[in-house]
Amino acid sequence: MNRRDVLAGTAVAAGGSLVAGKASARTARRQGANTRLRLAMIGVGMRGRVLLRELVRRDDVEVVGLCDLEQWTLDRALEQFIEANKPAPRLWTGSHESWREMLAAGGLDAVIIATPWEWHAPMAIGAMEAGIAVGCEVVAGVTLEDHWNVLRAQQRTNVPYMLLENVCFRRDVLAITRMVREGVFGEMIHLEGGYQHDLRDVKFNGGVVGQAYGGGVEFGERGWSEARWRTDHSVTRNGDLYPSHGIGPMAVWANIHRGNRFTRLTSYGSKARGLHDHVVARGGPDHPNARVNFQLGDVVTTSIACADGTTLRLTHDTNLPRPYSLGFRVQGQKGLWMDVNRSIYIEGESPEAHRWEPAQSWLDRYDHALWSQFAEQASGAGHGGMDFFIIHVFIEALKAGAAMPIDIYDAVAWSAITPLSEQSIANGNATVDFPDFTEGRWETARAWSF
Amino acid sequence: MNRRDVLAGTAVAAGGSLVAGKASARTARRQGANTRLRLAMIGVGMRGRVLLRELVRRDDVEVVGLCDLEQWTLDRALEQFIEANKPAPRLWTGSHESWREMLAAGGLDAVIIATPWEWHAPMAIGAMEAGIAVGCEVVAGVTLEDHWNVLRAQQRTNVPYMLLENVCFRRDVLAITRMVREGVFGEMIHLEGGYQHDLRDVKFNGGVVGQAYGGGVEFGERGWSEARWRTDHSVTRNGDLYPSHGIGPMAVWANIHRGNRFTRLTSYGSKARGLHDHVVARGGPDHPNARVNFQLGDVVTTSIACADGTTLRLTHDTNLPRPYSLGFRVQGQKGLWMDVNRSIYIEGESPEAHRWEPAQSWLDRYDHALWSQFAEQASGAGHGGMDFFIIHVFIEALKAGAAMPIDIYDAVAWSAITPLSEQSIANGNATVDFPDFTEGRWETARAWSF
Repeated sequence: MNRRDVLAGTAVAAGGSLVAGKASARTARRQGANTRLRLAMIGVGMRGRVLLRELVRRDDVEVVGLCDLEQWTLDRALEQFIEANKPAPRLWTGSHESWREMLAAGGLDAVIIATPWEWHAPMAIGAMEAGIAVGCEVVAGVTLEDHWNVLRAQQRTNVPYMLLENVCFRRDVLAITRMVREGVFGEMIHLEGGYQHDLRDVKFNGGVVGQAYGGGVEFGERGWSEARWRTDHSVTRNGDLYPSHGIGPMAVWANIHRGNRFTRLTSYGSKARGLHDHVVARGGPDHPNARVNFQLGDVVTTSIACADGTTLRLTHDTNLPRPYSLGFRVQGQKGLWMDVNRSIYIEGESPEAHRWEPAQSWLDRYDHALWSQFAEQASGAGHGGMDFFIIHVFIEALKAGAAMPIDIYDAVAWSAITPLSEQSIANGNATVDFPDFTEGRWETARAWSF
Repeated sequence: MNRRDVLAGTAVAAGGSLVAGKASARTARRQGANTRLRLAMIGVGMRGRVLLRELVRRDDVEVVGLCDLEQWTLDRALEQFIEANKPAPRLWTGSHESWREMLAAGGLDAVIIATPWEWHAPMAIGAMEAGIAVGCEVVAGVTLEDHWNVLRAQQRTNVPYMLLENVCFRRDVLAITRMVREGVFGEMIHLEGGYQHDLRDVKFNGGVVGQAYGGGVEFGERGWSEARWRTDHSVTRNGDLYPSHGIGPMAVWANIHRGNRFTRLTSYGSKARGLHDHVVARGGPDHPNARVNFQLGDVVTTSIACADGTTLRLTHDTNLPRPYSLGFRVQGQKGLWMDVNRSIYIEGESPEAHRWEPAQSWLDRYDHALWSQFAEQASGAGHGGMDFFIIHVFIEALKAGAAMPIDIYDAVAWSAITPLSEQSIANGNATVDFPDFTEGRWETARAWSF
């Protein structure tokens, strides 16, 4: 009996449900203990280590390999194993190709990819070709060609692939998901969301190992952590560089690839001021980076049409001083929710006609089964608990042999917004047809597993 | 000395400033008493009578003519004269062409147009050709051809024309205008706004004279007031039907036609459910209007690019249950304001980094001179005082012989968003170039008068 059969056997026992009752969840967990998944991670930087923390807490997972280029980073990751009293994993380091050796060494059920974006596609393809399931940090690749290549590799190998988009599991987002499904809003009409996060102290730092955020205006070779690789995308590209935190929940609400699909989009990019301003303010007008011509518009807005007539509006806003806000708006026939004012209005239900009501009592009433079941385990996990769930649903689905909760079609369609939005902006805000990665399969209604 | 010369003379005396000190405002008012403007109104329905109330309160205006088709409506208007102890105006009624007789009768300095949209262009052109200044309710016309025709008539006659867009004078909007000009936000980057107002009980009523809002699901011939004419636009058209409440303030903040201009736009319209739902819910599934195929998407979003790289995003959302919100967002290099959460963030000024702060103290501190000067007069005026100001600035500019505060170029560019957005949606969300109504004059920097 090979490992895949073991996983399939577990699936039958546990019923494949991610929101099983407590008894069966415990059963699955106990059985999981007998069929522990052997996992490895490629990339254990700032993001990877947050996910690693969730993995080393679990009894149904053995993290047997870590791959990273940087010894400091590997050392920090190893500390998590000591703290958790777990056996140290094998380390793979030394070159940009070390991950290939790790995959080739065998014995892995799954790999988590938390590396710079340009590595996501080749690493995922390499893993799937080695028969190793993939949990990939958000964006499946960089170019449209990347996305097709990742998709074709998954179809060719039939190895599980999941995009690790955690915002789908935010507590309010999941409560809204439940409300959408239970018809509280009626049919979906218009949705909004986006990534509105001041990343200036992520895109720039002092290049000091261990000090990822701020403390300087360096990037690229002279930066460290994300500033080393992420900022270059803001120099050379203009589009929605990071769509999944906004589009993920919207795709769930709009049932994308479950009877609906994106049909076209148009993007507008504002002038680019924020990154230059930041370099000048913190590094002075003579700093070499003050001469960099950042291409990324400070605010990029993308309109997306869906096959069923729902409209979506996505924002990317990472260069300017602003409070963090994903800016969700869920609007249906009966009312709407917005997160920026934490308010809701449902006709005939809200106490006063034409008046917002605070959303919290609705969010409490419609708390999602995943949260009511696992809130305790999630507490303390990264990003307000969301990172517990993204790992949890990935692992449970693998153990159950179930469909991936955010599958390859979701992954490539959500990620494709980036190159499509770049294309739109580069061509004078032209409207671009959205490729149908599912080749017609989007029309089949099927359920999300969460 | 003809009337125009009188007006010009007043202009010199008053200095042409709309935000003059109290003394000079009083002086202008006294002088105005000697050169009272003779005004007429075309259309004294629900909207017209709100403006009329501001006119009959003023000592510098004589309302000498009213034109409307409906006796009930004229009677309600006449009551305002009795209440204000003002002489009754002459009435013009009886046909769709009565307004032409009123304009031809002579003796008018200005006319206010508050009629169904399709009449705005011919009435404004007729007035300007008769040498009578025009204050026109929002939208200059319906088609792009209308807008060019109104513009050409104004250029040909050189008669003052103003679009009566009141939201530019909302107290918070004007405070933000001041903050924009004083650099609080830095350079403008991205602006949002729109008309988000549940108009279902405006678009439908019971057709009972005197009961404008709700009480039935009739429209067109069987409806009354706005339901009689406005709703047809939702049957036959799909676009941003009512752009000025959102785009007006945004145009002020972005200095449109004062060194900047709209260069292109793209609109997306959602599925249309709200109006049909409403007819069925209130009138039953067998009501004849349940078979009407409303073309207007429930939520229409329009992205607009500006010559200076600022991006704008406009929303039209009038068919669904929702609280009223114009959804403003003013985002610059240093921070942003949003009205839906009544919050602001200014880097280095707001008390906590990355945290919203309530906007009110900023709005108080930057209260606009118009409001600090005229708050008392404005209190009790329509739409929270805005309607005092829209009449006030129109009349004061006329008396001063000054440039119109919202001029013909503003009027047609703001209004052109409607046919352009229809064109975009009809052509598969195509991106449409924005005509330059100013034919190059937009590049000249000049100041708004408020």
